[in-house]
Amino acid sequence: MPLQRIGILTGGGDCSGLNAVIRALTLSAIRNHKLSVIGIERGFHGLVFNQTQELTLRSVRDILPQGGTILGTSNKCNPFAFKELHKDGRITTHDYSGRAVQTFRDLKLDCLFVIGGDGSLQIAHQLSELGLPVIAVPKTIDNDLEGTDYSFGFHTAVQVATDAIDRLQTTGRSHDRVMILEVMGRGAGWIALEAGVAGGAHVILIPEIPFDFDAVHAKIKERQALQAPFSLVVVAEGAMEKDCQPITQEAATTRLQGVPQFGGIGNHLASRLGRDTDLEVRCTVLGHLQRGGTPIAFDRVLGTELGSFALHSAVKGRFGTMVALRTPDLKLVPLKELAGRARQVPLDSQLIRTAESVGICLGR
Amino acid sequence: MPLQRIGILTGGGDCSGLNAVIRALTLSAIRNHKLSVIGIERGFHGLVFNQTQELTLRSVRDILPQGGTILGTSNKCNPFAFKELHKDGRITTHDYSGRAVQTFRDLKLDCLFVIGGDGSLQIAHQLSELGLPVIAVPKTIDNDLEGTDYSFGFHTAVQVATDAIDRLQTTGRSHDRVMILEVMGRGAGWIALEAGVAGGAHVILIPEIPFDFDAVHAKIKERQALQAPFSLVVVAEGAMEKDCQPITQEAATTRLQGVPQFGGIGNHLASRLGRDTDLEVRCTVLGHLQRGGTPIAFDRVLGTELGSFALHSAVKGRFGTMVALRTPDLKLVPLKELAGRARQVPLDSQLIRTAESVGICLGR
Amino acid sequence: MPLQRIGILTGGGDCSGLNAVIRALTLSAIRNHKLSVIGIERGFHGLVFNQTQELTLRSVRDILPQGGTILGTSNKCNPFAFKELHKDGRITTHDYSGRAVQTFRDLKLDCLFVIGGDGSLQIAHQLSELGLPVIAVPKTIDNDLEGTDYSFGFHTAVQVATDAIDRLQTTGRSHDRVMILEVMGRGAGWIALEAGVAGGAHVILIPEIPFDFDAVHAKIKERQALQAPFSLVVVAEGAMEKDCQPITQEAATTRLQGVPQFGGIGNHLASRLGRDTDLEVRCTVLGHLQRGGTPIAFDRVLGTELGSFALHSAVKGRFGTMVALRTPDLKLVPLKELAGRARQVPLDSQLIRTAESVGICLGR
Amino acid sequence: MPLQRIGILTGGGDCSGLNAVIRALTLSAIRNHKLSVIGIERGFHGLVFNQTQELTLRSVRDILPQGGTILGTSNKCNPFAFKELHKDGRITTHDYSGRAVQTFRDLKLDCLFVIGGDGSLQIAHQLSELGLPVIAVPKTIDNDLEGTDYSFGFHTAVQVATDAIDRLQTTGRSHDRVMILEVMGRGAGWIALEAGVAGGAHVILIPEIPFDFDAVHAKIKERQALQAPFSLVVVAEGAMEKDCQPITQEAATTRLQGVPQFGGIGNHLASRLGRDTDLEVRCTVLGHLQRGGTPIAFDRVLGTELGSFALHSAVKGRFGTMVALRTPDLKLVPLKELAGRARQVPLDSQLIRTAESVGICLGR
Repeated sequence: MPLQRIGILTGGGDCSGLNAVIRALTLSAIRNHKLSVIGIERGFHGLVFNQTQELTLRSVRDILPQGGTILGTSNKCNPFAFKELHKDGRITTHDYSGRAVQTFRDLKLDCLFVIGGDGSLQIAHQLSELGLPVIAVPKTIDNDLEGTDYSFGFHTAVQVATDAIDRLQTTGRSHDRVMILEVMGRGAGWIALEAGVAGGAHVILIPEIPFDFDAVHAKIKERQALQAPFSLVVVAEGAMEKDCQPITQEAATTRLQGVPQFGGIGNHLASRLGRDTDLEVRCTVLGHLQRGGTPIAFDRVLGTELGSFALHSAVKGRFGTMVALRTPDLKLVPLKELAGRARQVPLDSQLIRTAESVGICLGR
Repeated sequence: MPLQRIGILTGGGDCSGLNAVIRALTLSAIRNHKLSVIGIERGFHGLVFNQTQELTLRSVRDILPQGGTILGTSNKCNPFAFKELHKDGRITTHDYSGRAVQTFRDLKLDCLFVIGGDGSLQIAHQLSELGLPVIAVPKTIDNDLEGTDYSFGFHTAVQVATDAIDRLQTTGRSHDRVMILEVMGRGAGWIALEAGVAGGAHVILIPEIPFDFDAVHAKIKERQALQAPFSLVVVAEGAMEKDCQPITQEAATTRLQGVPQFGGIGNHLASRLGRDTDLEVRCTVLGHLQRGGTPIAFDRVLGTELGSFALHSAVKGRFGTMVALRTPDLKLVPLKELAGRARQVPLDSQLIRTAESVGICLGR
Repeated sequence: MPLQRIGILTGGGDCSGLNAVIRALTLSAIRNHKLSVIGIERGFHGLVFNQTQELTLRSVRDILPQGGTILGTSNKCNPFAFKELHKDGRITTHDYSGRAVQTFRDLKLDCLFVIGGDGSLQIAHQLSELGLPVIAVPKTIDNDLEGTDYSFGFHTAVQVATDAIDRLQTTGRSHDRVMILEVMGRGAGWIALEAGVAGGAHVILIPEIPFDFDAVHAKIKERQALQAPFSLVVVAEGAMEKDCQPITQEAATTRLQGVPQFGGIGNHLASRLGRDTDLEVRCTVLGHLQRGGTPIAFDRVLGTELGSFALHSAVKGRFGTMVALRTPDLKLVPLKELAGRARQVPLDSQLIRTAESVGICLGR
Repeated sequence: MPLQRIGILTGGGDCSGLNAVIRALTLSAIRNHKLSVIGIERGFHGLVFNQTQELTLRSVRDILPQGGTILGTSNKCNPFAFKELHKDGRITTHDYSGRAVQTFRDLKLDCLFVIGGDGSLQIAHQLSELGLPVIAVPKTIDNDLEGTDYSFGFHTAVQVATDAIDRLQTTGRSHDRVMILEVMGRGAGWIALEAGVAGGAHVILIPEIPFDFDAVHAKIKERQALQAPFSLVVVAEGAMEKDCQPITQEAATTRLQGVPQFGGIGNHLASRLGRDTDLEVRCTVLGHLQRGGTPIAFDRVLGTELGSFALHSAVKGRFGTMVALRTPDLKLVPLKELAGRARQVPLDSQLIRTAESVGICLGR
């Protein structure tokens, strides 16, 4: 029986390119197959509580250059472990997956498209195991999902970080300062590495390589000796010193609890470098500027390709899968193969070798 | 006696457009008057210690789009109160203005161009009182100098902040969050106001209007009631709550001591809003991204006009002055008229009226 | 009797910042005075044929960063000389001003806001003479309207042109080429001059100074002799050679007839320079890229200020006027004082002096 | 015997990212292997006439964000068929490959790095056949080189074109116009397709699919019927109508002869659409804006990786090869395998399928 109605939701933190996927799914569904398209609002929250809107050709007009997601998202809601806040402050956890399945049935959907990251893919897999026809589109600004060459939003984040480095370079040089830029990357250093290489950084610190503070210090001293007292350091938020308790632990915790972060690794490093050298050190935390805003062309094309491919895979009944980029092609990966696999930067990758080849200190 | 040799220095924090001024001074001097041009390095530090480089047509090639200053700068050095750090950690203060004057004479300069902010203009005035032929070019990213419509670097900072707001808007809307952007402006809220109006902020907090937390809270609640739970707040670093000790005092202090800042007004506000509402609140501190990088066209034109006009004013012997913009003309202001006058946003200005007219809450 | 309903239309070619004005008018009207706001579609066309939409708080959400005008525009329609195309190809001209007035009355409007350029202001004045309460907001990408320091859209166009020059500089230098950029400016050279100064052009040709081809040629030769064989020329579309019939006449004519333009002054100049020198010459016509797209912060602020000020002027009954920028204030100018006055770059302006001071050849 | 001295040249049209390759080669050579690095100026011209400069760590400082090539280039010079212009206007052709080889020997080079496109790779192959140790780095803004997933400069060009489309969208919509953007791509439509998909174009015309004018016309009419009278058309410069003599023939010819182009396919299409419909049609030719300027992060990273990998391949003696991207790895391709193979967009590629899936008319 051919598809008639599909549902789309976006889960987890937003990133540039989500709207390109929503648009491509919708256009492909309506133009090629005359399907009805239901947008589920605020991620899995809308699936649990049946909050939706119909998506038409008009709904997706002009959204290609827009950051964020027109459907809204939630990066906390898990139907299988739904946290409810009571008036007395207690929080209880419930399995609302039944509600999610019921919404799917009430809406008479024939396929659910889940656009999301690690957590959302896990939920998509669980819903698939419960028998729902699901197709996932991978989303991670950190580029740390196994199974796909790149995820959309990543190159936009790298571009934003590179633009920031270009700005910091000129102010650092004018003042002979050490400028530190902290970028996203809790568990993987892709953004830090690509932006650092693109921006001509002198030091790049990533979670994959616990760093030796003395090596960083030595690099900065080497530059002073070369009459170039200015240095630029890019540090992933998840980087940590060697033989050390995770020094971002506290920041990570407070951030998870919804309290705004300050005092992450970038600022810690700035304090220590300022104390151990006679240099002026300044830290900038790029934060949410990496997430939002107009996606660069690469991410718009990738998002559009993934959305279009996902819809056509659904038409062919290829459920329980995730669409993935294997340059220059797209392919399908079974959801069950993905569980729990995060992708760090391989230490023997060309990117690592390139960085060290052009003289960048990786803290080792 | 006509001019033969001129000196140029840039003092204080860097901002976009400094190189446009240096270039215009140099090109105008060499092309029109065949002068020798001496670049004094690292601000007044180079004047005290006679550290210079000759500036030629080649030196200033291609520097127009570059942020920062090719001469380097220092935002601590005052020849009249020079702080010397001794090996035992003591700091002593000396009057090295004699050295500065001597360098001027040793270099056989006929005019000194000082491109700088409040502090540098003060020093320029003192050197002028000592008899040096000085012409100043005003520089302040905060736009808070009396006597000139705009200073270069300001509009670039506003553009960078506006781009940041555009990015935060999409991520805030996707997550129904309150996004806070802290921008520069210790004593004046020009950047916050212009960027906030340009970016469509819902709340703008500036030093000129000590804010009522309840008014801010009410505005955010009003938006929730209007089915637009997302809000965007722009706060100048020098903003403070009404009837309150300056809550940025600590941050300001630590920054002045060269220790990287965290925990400024933006993060304080985020904590409090997060605590007093059930909303997710996120703060981004734009920091040094406002200073560096390619100047926008407006600042390149303004810097070029000011530099060219300064040189021609020197040729006419109009020393002891500052060049200033009185749209669309330039004019000269005596240095002695400037002392200690900072320019805040007038509360009856069109900008304030405009902001409130389109529904922006200014915290009152 | 206080205002109750207002109408807004945008006329003439689009430019960046129109939506900022529409948004500010609408927000100020609804939030401060609870007025009804009627958007008139496609410029005066909608006034003649009563094609409108109501503008609400929701209509103007998110339009601040958008180029163009949400109301649509027409740069041909004049109610006083309306051209009608018949099936047999004949075109007849009619005075439909009565229809325009009738629409105004049918809509029960209390004030009409006309956002437009030279032609639209003329029509606004005529409608005002017929007794309609009209307030105009000046719009010209060319910055050539008398009575206002700057018009919105102009600085965005200058920024787009400057970005283009930055790009052409690197390719020109790599190839030792003469790169020509043709920018807008039929009757005034503001864009060419500001962008040329901002981009570090070597030659700038504007309508105000009929150019001497030999002077241009000599400047390019001078650069070759200086081991800098690359040159960058910015030419306004309305520039023309001295003692010459307007060489853009043909292009101008064809453009007015709705046929796409090619072969304007930029390409003519490229042909001639390529023939008279042994240099490779390349011309780029920036064209419509100057009109559309996200306005820079300056134009968003200016548009918002003008819109807000226009609304409040209407509330005070100050009809028959145009709002204008007299930095840093806004003011009202009677419409009748504007008729037919276009503003060229004064030959004794600081901008002209600056350009020549830094060595730019203006073709004389 | 280990390497001691290497030479680098850039040939053919410039594109963004060339400096990233030069920098990575130089830094890797000096930092890791203490080699001497000779920059050969103006492409093969400098090899024939022994025009060089030494490249040091200082030479390549700050060049990463710069467009173009610091070595200069020539897109006409072929040592094997060198065209000499005589005073009487005659042009004679000579085999100066012996001079090129002699320069290589005089400079005591151990390896020559040729960064260039189709033509340069051919020459590199011929020099390799003559016994010179050569390693090539592929460069083509059109992305039409066989053997590598992407070439640097391509994604920057796509980004520039996408930004242009974003601008044209708003102006087109405001005026209900058909906006045409002509982009690069003589023989392959990669830029047109990626930028068109990224920008949400309605029609994309590429050399791989000779287009049916009626199909284009029908698409535009379909949009009018849908109350969306505005259309955006992206056309590659090499696109041509079905069953037609190449209509860009004349433009292509004149361009090859060094005469600036006008009247390419974009303008032809605009004339015809304007004539056959009652719509206003406007064409913008993006031209050289696609070549120059700051490379986006992707191209800086790719250029750096290719340069670093090329140097290390030389150290291992892997001459007669081209470095290539096989995402996410780099690899070596023998130069002899490349001869004459240009890469068009495969008609069964995901990109083509995606474009048609979201409703873009490809002229068939």
